[in-house]
Amino acid sequence: MSVGFQILDDLACLQTRVREFISTQIIPLESDPRQGPHSPEEGLCRELIARARSAELLSPHVAPEYGGLGLTHQGRAIVFEEAGYSMLGPVALNIFAPDEGNMHLLEAVATPAQKERWLRPLAAGEIRSCFCMTEPPPGAGSDPSMLKSTARPDGDGYVIDGLKWFTTGAESSTLAIIMADVPGTGATMFLADMHAPGITIERSLQTLDTCFPGGHGVVRFEGLRVATSDILGELGQGFRNAQVRLSPARLTHCMRWLGAARRAHDIAVDYARTRYAFGKTIGEHEGVGFMLADNEMDLHGARLAIWHCAGVLDQDELGLHESSRAKVMVSEAVWRVADRCVQILGGQGVTGETVVARIFADMRAFRIYDGPSEVHRWSLAKRILKGTRR
Amino acid sequence: MSVGFQILDDLACLQTRVREFISTQIIPLESDPRQGPHSPEEGLCRELIARARSAELLSPHVAPEYGGLGLTHQGRAIVFEEAGYSMLGPVALNIFAPDEGNMHLLEAVATPAQKERWLRPLAAGEIRSCFCMTEPPPGAGSDPSMLKSTARPDGDGYVIDGLKWFTTGAESSTLAIIMADVPGTGATMFLADMHAPGITIERSLQTLDTCFPGGHGVVRFEGLRVATSDILGELGQGFRNAQVRLSPARLTHCMRWLGAARRAHDIAVDYARTRYAFGKTIGEHEGVGFMLADNEMDLHGARLAIWHCAGVLDQDELGLHESSRAKVMVSEAVWRVADRCVQILGGQGVTGETVVARIFADMRAFRIYDGPSEVHRWSLAKRILKGTRR
Amino acid sequence: MSVGFQILDDLACLQTRVREFISTQIIPLESDPRQGPHSPEEGLCRELIARARSAELLSPHVAPEYGGLGLTHQGRAIVFEEAGYSMLGPVALNIFAPDEGNMHLLEAVATPAQKERWLRPLAAGEIRSCFCMTEPPPGAGSDPSMLKSTARPDGDGYVIDGLKWFTTGAESSTLAIIMADVPGTGATMFLADMHAPGITIERSLQTLDTCFPGGHGVVRFEGLRVATSDILGELGQGFRNAQVRLSPARLTHCMRWLGAARRAHDIAVDYARTRYAFGKTIGEHEGVGFMLADNEMDLHGARLAIWHCAGVLDQDELGLHESSRAKVMVSEAVWRVADRCVQILGGQGVTGETVVARIFADMRAFRIYDGPSEVHRWSLAKRILKGTRR
Amino acid sequence: MSVGFQILDDLACLQTRVREFISTQIIPLESDPRQGPHSPEEGLCRELIARARSAELLSPHVAPEYGGLGLTHQGRAIVFEEAGYSMLGPVALNIFAPDEGNMHLLEAVATPAQKERWLRPLAAGEIRSCFCMTEPPPGAGSDPSMLKSTARPDGDGYVIDGLKWFTTGAESSTLAIIMADVPGTGATMFLADMHAPGITIERSLQTLDTCFPGGHGVVRFEGLRVATSDILGELGQGFRNAQVRLSPARLTHCMRWLGAARRAHDIAVDYARTRYAFGKTIGEHEGVGFMLADNEMDLHGARLAIWHCAGVLDQDELGLHESSRAKVMVSEAVWRVADRCVQILGGQGVTGETVVARIFADMRAFRIYDGPSEVHRWSLAKRILKGTRR
Repeated sequence: MSVGFQILDDLACLQTRVREFISTQIIPLESDPRQGPHSPEEGLCRELIARARSAELLSPHVAPEYGGLGLTHQGRAIVFEEAGYSMLGPVALNIFAPDEGNMHLLEAVATPAQKERWLRPLAAGEIRSCFCMTEPPPGAGSDPSMLKSTARPDGDGYVIDGLKWFTTGAESSTLAIIMADVPGTGATMFLADMHAPGITIERSLQTLDTCFPGGHGVVRFEGLRVATSDILGELGQGFRNAQVRLSPARLTHCMRWLGAARRAHDIAVDYARTRYAFGKTIGEHEGVGFMLADNEMDLHGARLAIWHCAGVLDQDELGLHESSRAKVMVSEAVWRVADRCVQILGGQGVTGETVVARIFADMRAFRIYDGPSEVHRWSLAKRILKGTRR
Repeated sequence: MSVGFQILDDLACLQTRVREFISTQIIPLESDPRQGPHSPEEGLCRELIARARSAELLSPHVAPEYGGLGLTHQGRAIVFEEAGYSMLGPVALNIFAPDEGNMHLLEAVATPAQKERWLRPLAAGEIRSCFCMTEPPPGAGSDPSMLKSTARPDGDGYVIDGLKWFTTGAESSTLAIIMADVPGTGATMFLADMHAPGITIERSLQTLDTCFPGGHGVVRFEGLRVATSDILGELGQGFRNAQVRLSPARLTHCMRWLGAARRAHDIAVDYARTRYAFGKTIGEHEGVGFMLADNEMDLHGARLAIWHCAGVLDQDELGLHESSRAKVMVSEAVWRVADRCVQILGGQGVTGETVVARIFADMRAFRIYDGPSEVHRWSLAKRILKGTRR
Repeated sequence: MSVGFQILDDLACLQTRVREFISTQIIPLESDPRQGPHSPEEGLCRELIARARSAELLSPHVAPEYGGLGLTHQGRAIVFEEAGYSMLGPVALNIFAPDEGNMHLLEAVATPAQKERWLRPLAAGEIRSCFCMTEPPPGAGSDPSMLKSTARPDGDGYVIDGLKWFTTGAESSTLAIIMADVPGTGATMFLADMHAPGITIERSLQTLDTCFPGGHGVVRFEGLRVATSDILGELGQGFRNAQVRLSPARLTHCMRWLGAARRAHDIAVDYARTRYAFGKTIGEHEGVGFMLADNEMDLHGARLAIWHCAGVLDQDELGLHESSRAKVMVSEAVWRVADRCVQILGGQGVTGETVVARIFADMRAFRIYDGPSEVHRWSLAKRILKGTRR
Repeated sequence: MSVGFQILDDLACLQTRVREFISTQIIPLESDPRQGPHSPEEGLCRELIARARSAELLSPHVAPEYGGLGLTHQGRAIVFEEAGYSMLGPVALNIFAPDEGNMHLLEAVATPAQKERWLRPLAAGEIRSCFCMTEPPPGAGSDPSMLKSTARPDGDGYVIDGLKWFTTGAESSTLAIIMADVPGTGATMFLADMHAPGITIERSLQTLDTCFPGGHGVVRFEGLRVATSDILGELGQGFRNAQVRLSPARLTHCMRWLGAARRAHDIAVDYARTRYAFGKTIGEHEGVGFMLADNEMDLHGARLAIWHCAGVLDQDELGLHESSRAKVMVSEAVWRVADRCVQILGGQGVTGETVVARIFADMRAFRIYDGPSEVHRWSLAKRILKGTRR
C-alpha cells in the first residue's frame, strides 16, 4: 500500500524554487500601477513572463519539446499552488486560464502543424489565446448542448457565426479556439486568429474578478471563414475535445486558487497575531482562533482532494467524476477561507490595504466558472445513483 | 395579546408611495454615468435628493419641526426597506449611513443652537456629515475603549489630535462628529466643520462597497481647535452618546440592506423563471428552486427580526441586546441571500449585467460594519450567561 | 401600523399559569418510572391529564362548548410553547400530536353527532385518537397522491382495505381517522373505532423519538366496514380536509418543539455557567458562548416565525405557504439548538443525566414529520416562481 | 514525488477479505436478539470474536508476536473502515474503543511482564479492558489537568481514590488502566484488575450510543491498592503516556466511523433509487441527489484526511496536530453524512427499519468523545498562531 503524501526530492526542490520566485520576484509587482482595475495590463504581463523565463519556470506544464518542464498533474499540483500564492504568479508562469488549458488541449489533439503555429509561441509566452465556448442566454452556458453558434460548410472551409461571452482573455489573445455546431455533424472546435475579419470583440464584461489578463469579452463571429485544416481534433468531436480539456483545466483552477486562499490565510494569521482587542490579540479570542482552525482544515482538505484527483489524471483517466468532485470541494473550501479572512481582518478586510479583498472578489466566480457547484452536484448524483461509483 | 404583523393603513400608503418613487424615479438613475466607481458623485446625489424633496419623502426619520416625517422605528422599518431596494434610494431619502444616524443623535442630544446650525441643513439635504470614531490599529476598532485620539483642554476650548479611518462620507461632509478622549475625563464627542484648519483627509480607502457617497476616508486631526459649545451632549459622555446612536443606527442598516437583498432576490427569481438549462427553466431545478426558498425564508426572518427590534426601540428602550441580535441575524441572512442570487445568475452573477454583483460586493462589509458578528455574539453570550436575558 | 409583539394582559397571565404548572406539576414527573422506553405509559398519561384538568388547562385550543379555552392560534403559540418546555407537558394539556390536530379538524368539519361522539370525550382527555394517512412504500408518504388504501362502496357503507404506518398513538387510540381512496371519487376521510373488527395493529415502529403516547403503529385494515355517517366532511374531499388540518397542525408542532428547545438551551446555559475547563467557566470560552448566542438567535427567529404564521391563520387563511415556510424555519432552527446543547454539555450531553439527549433524539424526526424540509422547500419554490408570493 | 493513493496489492487483498467477512459473517448477526438495547451482550461478543479468529482477522493492529497482523496505521485505515461498515465489525475484529487503543498503549510502554499478563489475553480476545481517565464535574473532562483522582504512596505501592465516568466497557472489563495524580509527582497510569477490592461500578450511563460492549460506566475507586509494578510507563508520566495513545486512538475512531457512515450512505443510495415520489425516484429529485453528492464528498474528504494522518503516524511522529485536525474533519463530515441519510430515508430514517437511525444516534457522540470539536479547534488555533504549523 502506498497512501504516501510525501513530496519527492526533485519536486520539493522545484517547489522551493517557485515559492522563492513568487516571493521575491512577483509579489513586489503586485503594487505595480500597471495592475489595472480590471486585469493586469500588457506591459506588466510581459515583465512577469520575462521574469519567469529567466527563472526557467515558464510554462512548466508543457512538454519539454515545446519549452516546458513536462510536469505531471501531481507536479502541477505543487507548482501551481505556489504560483497562485500571488494573483500575478499564474500570469508569470504562463499557467493562467484559459491559456494553460488551451495549451494542454493543443498538446493532446492538435496536428503537428497546428502545434508549431500556435502551441510553440503560446508556450513561449509570446502570444495568448482564448476559448470561445460560453454563450449568453439562450445559448450554451452550464448546458453545453444549447450551443447556438454555427459553422456552416462553405467551399473548402467553414463559415462561423455566433455570439460568445465570458471569453476570458479575449482582448489580449491572438488565438481563438471556437466551439461551433456544424449542422448535421455536431459540435466542432476550430482554431482562428483573433485578428481575422469576422471577429469582433463587442465589449468586455465588468466582473468581480480582476485577475484575468484581457478580461472577459463578448465576442461576435460574423461570417468568419476558417479552413478545414483549422479544425482542432476531429469534425463533430467538439465535446470529446472539451472533455480532454475539462478535468485538467478544472483541477488547475483548483490548484491556483488554493494558493490564493493560502495567501489570504497567511495574512489573516499575521493580523490575528498582532491586532489587539478587548485585552488580548484577536487570535487569542476563540471566535477568531476557530476561524483560523477552520481555514487550516479547509486548506488541508482542498489540497488532499487536488492531489488525489491529480493522481487519477496521471493514470491517464478522464477523471470526469473525480474532477467534478474535487472542483466542488475545493471551490467551496477556498471560498470559505477567503470569506473568513475578510472577517478576521475586520474593516481592513474589505479594503485595498491588503490583497485579501481582491482574492475574495476574484474567488467568488470560482464557484461558477468551470460549471457551477449545482451542475457538478447533479452529475455526481447521477453517477452515484447509476452505481458507476462506489 | 397582539402579535399582529399588519401594517396599518397610513403606513401602508406611505410604503406604496416610497415603492413607486424608488421604482420610477430612482432605479432609472442607477445606470447614470455619475454613479462613479467608488460612490455616487455629488451631482447625482443632488439630483436624487431633489427628487425625494419633490416627492415629500426627504429625511422621513427626522422630526417634523426639522422637516421630516417623524417616523417611529417601526415606520422606518417599512420605509427604509423600500428605499434600500435601490442602492441609490437611501441617498435620495437622505437616510444613508452615517447621516441618518447622525441626525438621530443630534435630535436626541444636541443643544437647540447645535440643532439649528447642523441638524436643520442636514435634514434638508443641504449638507452632509461624517462620524469620526473608528481608528486604525492600534486604535479603537471593535473595541472602543482603545480610543487613541485626544481632546486636550486648551484655553476656553479643546485641541483635538488623532487619526481616524473608515470615516464614511468624509470627502463630501461639512460636519464632523468626532470622538476623542479628554484625558482624565473620558471619551467625549465634538462637532466640527470639516473645512476647519487642523482637519486633513489623507486619502480614501478602496473598498468592496461603493454605495456610500464620499467613500471611506482616512482623516487626520492635528491641532484642531473646538469650543466648549461644540461638545455634543456632555463632557466625558461620549460612550453614552454612542449608545444613543448605536441601536437605531444598527437597525436602519438592517432595514436598508434588507431592501437590497430583496432586490437581488427579485432579479434572481426573474432569471430563474426564464433561463433554460437541461430541458427546463433553471427555477424548476430543485438545486435553484431550493435556493429561492431559502432566500424567502431568510428575507422573512430578517424582516421579522427588524420589526421586533423596532418595536422595542419604539418603547424608548436602548435595545442594545435586541439590536445586537437583530444585526447579526439580519446581516448574515441578507448576505446568504446575496450570495445565492449571484450563484443563481451563474456567470452573469459576477458581472455588471445586473446590480446583483454590486449588491453582493457592497453587502460583504455589513457583517463587519457596526461591529463584526463575532463581537456581537460575544456580547450576546455575556448577557445570556449573566442571566439578564431569558 | 402595528408590528407589535407584546403579549396582552390576559394571555400573559395564562402564560404565567402554564409556566408555573409545567414547572411545579409536570417536570417532577419526568423521572417517573412510568415514562417508558418508547413513550409515556397509560397510567402516567392519565395522571398528567388529571393534573391539567385540575389546573383548568386541559385542551385549551378547543372551543369552550367542548370544554376548552377557545384559544386563537396566537394564543396557542404562547401556551403550547410553555407546555412543550416539558416533553410531558403536551400530553398533560391534551395538545400533543395527533390528537390536537384531530380535535381541530373535528371541530372544523365534523357533524354535530360526530362531535358528540368523538370530539367531546377527546377534549375531555377520556379517549385518544390517531390519524391514519401515511403508508409504507410504495404508498403515500411525502406524496399524498400515491394513496393505496381503498374504501369501496358496499351496501349502505364502505369497506376499507389498506396498510398504514407511522400511525402515531395507534396503540392507545379509540378513534381512527382514516384516509382512503374511494375509487372513481377520490380520497375520503372516515371515522372508525380502533376496536372495530378489521383493524389490526401489526406492530409498533422503533423510533428515535419517544415522546408520543402510543408510539407509532403499523395498522392494517382488512374488510373494515364503515357507515356513510362515518364519512368525515364530504365524500371525495379527503385532501381538502387534510388542508384544513395541515397548517394548524404543522404550526402547533413548531410551538411545542420551540418549548423543548428552550428547555435544552436553559440547561445548557446553566451548565456553561458552572462547568470549568482551562481556567474559566466554559461559557466564558467564546467557542461555547457563541453557541449560546446562536441558540438565542435561533429561538428568537423561530418564535417570530410562529407568531407571524399564527397571525395569518387567525385571519382565517389556509396559510399553506406561510406554514410551510414556518415549519422549515422552525424545525431547522430548533434542531440546531438541540444539537448545540448536546455539544455544550459534552459527554453528559449524550447521556440520560439531563433531558437534553432525549429532546435531541425526539427532535430529529421533526425535520421529517409533517413533510420533510425538502418537500416544503419545493412547494415554496413553486409558489415563488409562479409569482403568487412576493 | 509520491502523492499516490493506490492501495498496494497485499493490502487490497486484505481489504477484500475483511469486506467479505463483514458482509457474510457479521452483518447477518446485526438482527441477533443478543444485540441488547445498550450494547451487544457477552454471548454475542464471544461469537463475533470467534468468527474473526476463524477468519484470521482478530486484532490486526497488534504485533504478530502477540497474535495480530502488525498493521501499519495506513493498513489500519483500510481494515478498520471495512470493519466499521457494521457496528458489530469492530467488536468482532477486537478493534473497538477503548481496547484497541489500550492494546496499542500496552504494546508501546508496558513491561514484558505486563504485556504477558494483559496484552496477550487482550489481543486474543479473551479479556477486555477499560480506560479510566474521564471524571465527572468538577474533575477532568476536556481539560485533563483538572484530574481529581489520587494515587497516594502507601507502603511499597499506592492507594487509589477517585471517581471516573464515561469509562467505556467498564462492565465487561478485566483490566483497568487508571489515570490518577500522585501528589507532588504528577499524573500516573496504573494497571488494575477490575475485580480487585476497592473498585465499584456504581452504574452505567444511559447514552445515545449503544455500540460499545459494556456501555459507559461510573467507576469508583476507594482504597484501591496497586503495586509499583502496576505502574504503566513511568511514575509521573501519565500525560506523556496519554499522548502515545492519543493520536492513534483518535484516528482509529475516525476509521471505524467512516465505515459506518459509508454503510448509511449505501442504504440511502439504495432507497433513493427505488422510492418514488412526485413522479420519479426520490434520487432523481435534486433535493435528494445533491445530498448524495454531498455525502460522497464528505466520505471522500474524510478518507483522505485519515489516510494522510495515518501516513504521518507511520513516520513515528506523535501527530498531535494532524490527528486533532483529522478528528474534527472526520467526525463532522461523517456526522453530516449520517444526518443526511436519515433525512433521505424520510420517516423510515428515524426508525429501526434500517441501521441508519442507530448509526446516527451512535455517531452523535463522536463529535464529543476524544475531545469535543471546540477543544481541538482551540489547540489547532494555538499552534497556528504560534507559527509551529505552516
